[in-house]
Amino acid sequence: MVDSAEAPPRVLVVGAGAIGAFYGGQLARAGAQVSVVSRADFEAVQSVGYDIRSPLGDFVFRPAQVLRSAADCPVPPDYLLLCVKTVRGLDRAALIRDAVGPHTVIVLIANGIGVEQELADAFPHNELVSVLAYVAVSRTGRGTVQHHALGALAMGNFPRGVTARTERLAGLFRAAGLSCETQDDIAASRWHKCLWNIAFNPISVLGGALDTRAILAPPEGEAFVRRVMQEMCRVAAANGYPMDEQVIEGSIRSTRAMTPYKTSMALDYENGRALEIDPIIGNVVRSARRHGVAVPSLEALHALLCMVQDRAEAPAPG
Amino acid sequence: MVDSAEAPPRVLVVGAGAIGAFYGGQLARAGAQVSVVSRADFEAVQSVGYDIRSPLGDFVFRPAQVLRSAADCPVPPDYLLLCVKTVRGLDRAALIRDAVGPHTVIVLIANGIGVEQELADAFPHNELVSVLAYVAVSRTGRGTVQHHALGALAMGNFPRGVTARTERLAGLFRAAGLSCETQDDIAASRWHKCLWNIAFNPISVLGGALDTRAILAPPEGEAFVRRVMQEMCRVAAANGYPMDEQVIEGSIRSTRAMTPYKTSMALDYENGRALEIDPIIGNVVRSARRHGVAVPSLEALHALLCMVQDRAEAPAPG
Repeated sequence: MVDSAEAPPRVLVVGAGAIGAFYGGQLARAGAQVSVVSRADFEAVQSVGYDIRSPLGDFVFRPAQVLRSAADCPVPPDYLLLCVKTVRGLDRAALIRDAVGPHTVIVLIANGIGVEQELADAFPHNELVSVLAYVAVSRTGRGTVQHHALGALAMGNFPRGVTARTERLAGLFRAAGLSCETQDDIAASRWHKCLWNIAFNPISVLGGALDTRAILAPPEGEAFVRRVMQEMCRVAAANGYPMDEQVIEGSIRSTRAMTPYKTSMALDYENGRALEIDPIIGNVVRSARRHGVAVPSLEALHALLCMVQDRAEAPAPG
Repeated sequence: MVDSAEAPPRVLVVGAGAIGAFYGGQLARAGAQVSVVSRADFEAVQSVGYDIRSPLGDFVFRPAQVLRSAADCPVPPDYLLLCVKTVRGLDRAALIRDAVGPHTVIVLIANGIGVEQELADAFPHNELVSVLAYVAVSRTGRGTVQHHALGALAMGNFPRGVTARTERLAGLFRAAGLSCETQDDIAASRWHKCLWNIAFNPISVLGGALDTRAILAPPEGEAFVRRVMQEMCRVAAANGYPMDEQVIEGSIRSTRAMTPYKTSMALDYENGRALEIDPIIGNVVRSARRHGVAVPSLEALHALLCMVQDRAEAPAPG
């Protein structure tokens, strides 16, 4: 082991949007030496760092180095935090390959189901840590990030287990004041978190960027959300992750109670950005087909989202 | 019978948009005395009539009278053509009540399933003729209508049968040069026509005003259209109208072959108008529930459309 409890770990954040800047900044506060790859905000971040506003306390995150691409990274980091969306056409392995050394731990902070395998295949000899972020955070301008609420993390190695390096990383996040749980089988949490996402994200887009209140407003809306979640539970069970269906009622109840909220997918749709279709629903539909689980509501949402995405990517009519 | 083969029948068109003006104009060409209720285009139509452009020959339709409401109708017509959309919040019976006399035949030109009963209940002693129009026609300005293609009609009394007055009306349309079929059981044609509408209308809206090509572009799109139509066939069969599922393949094939086309519901959606949700899909879903037919794809489309409509009708956030 090259790890040393004394030397601050070197961290490289790739995809330093709101999530990457926020969690990278937390690691820096905990003493890690954190660099970032940032193309879009390069000048702003280079000159003044990230201005992070948070109910937990505002802070400025000045990365050790600001790079334009992973290829500019002089020494492979101990941890490479990959915080990009999992969207069609983005080769995540290519994005980080030049910065991954033989001992680099790849840390994937991402939503959804089936997001790790592509990276495990591309870097079979590296540790891969799968991370779920329970956080509301958004980029508000060049190098500026607003943290709205929450912040807890759950992580574990892919496909399972928790190594010493993963525990060390979790310790850094905790040192920064965040809740960070390590889990022997992180996939269980992925299925659980995706239960909400698979209903509210696609529906919010297909209704034309609806918020959670509009989705639950008509009686047909709540009933549909329930059917979608029931189908999701059946796919999770077929994958070895049974969920108590009471979770569904709790999820609907708490969504009704919260301030109306527009999902990240709805915001991506409104802003013409690529949609995370495969991690949020596509991979679940394919898993259902492999297991012979009927998911007609999920199939409907998936088909409609594919049309929306195809149209968005089509050249404008001339 | 007060009908006389000699006296030209008096016709009142209520809802004189593109469909009403086009078919009212055809009846006038065949010798009927046709008046219209037109609020939106009153001045234009009053002064110069309807300018109807058609590949079958342009013509001007000057109504016998132009009225602002059915209450202004001096004598009940022999035929009252009702050509409004069947949308939530529009009381169609109230719209025509003041013009319906004891011998008035109510002629409903409308899309979808379950559109007649409300009128049959409101006017139990009047003949009710249920009409399907196979036509592409649009309003292009005040008092101007463009007929693009087709024009055939199918009609029959509701709930079934064909009376002499219905045959007489059909004869007038034929005299104007249109194909017009009378059918003893017009509901069969309604189910058949709705097979296309129930797939392409909702999907076109939910995809964000997609045309037929965009709907069929992704492989998931065609498969989804097929599932929607298969469910529709099962509901039709449960209602006594079995359809050969080969019709589905023919429908998909011919839709692929035609010029990409945006459905009327997609156009209504784009223009902020009310959507014909119940006749196109809502009534079919309710019928499926009554018959215990599982229609998860239709339920999905219906729930999503209800959300879209609720949001469109909600007051803008202040």
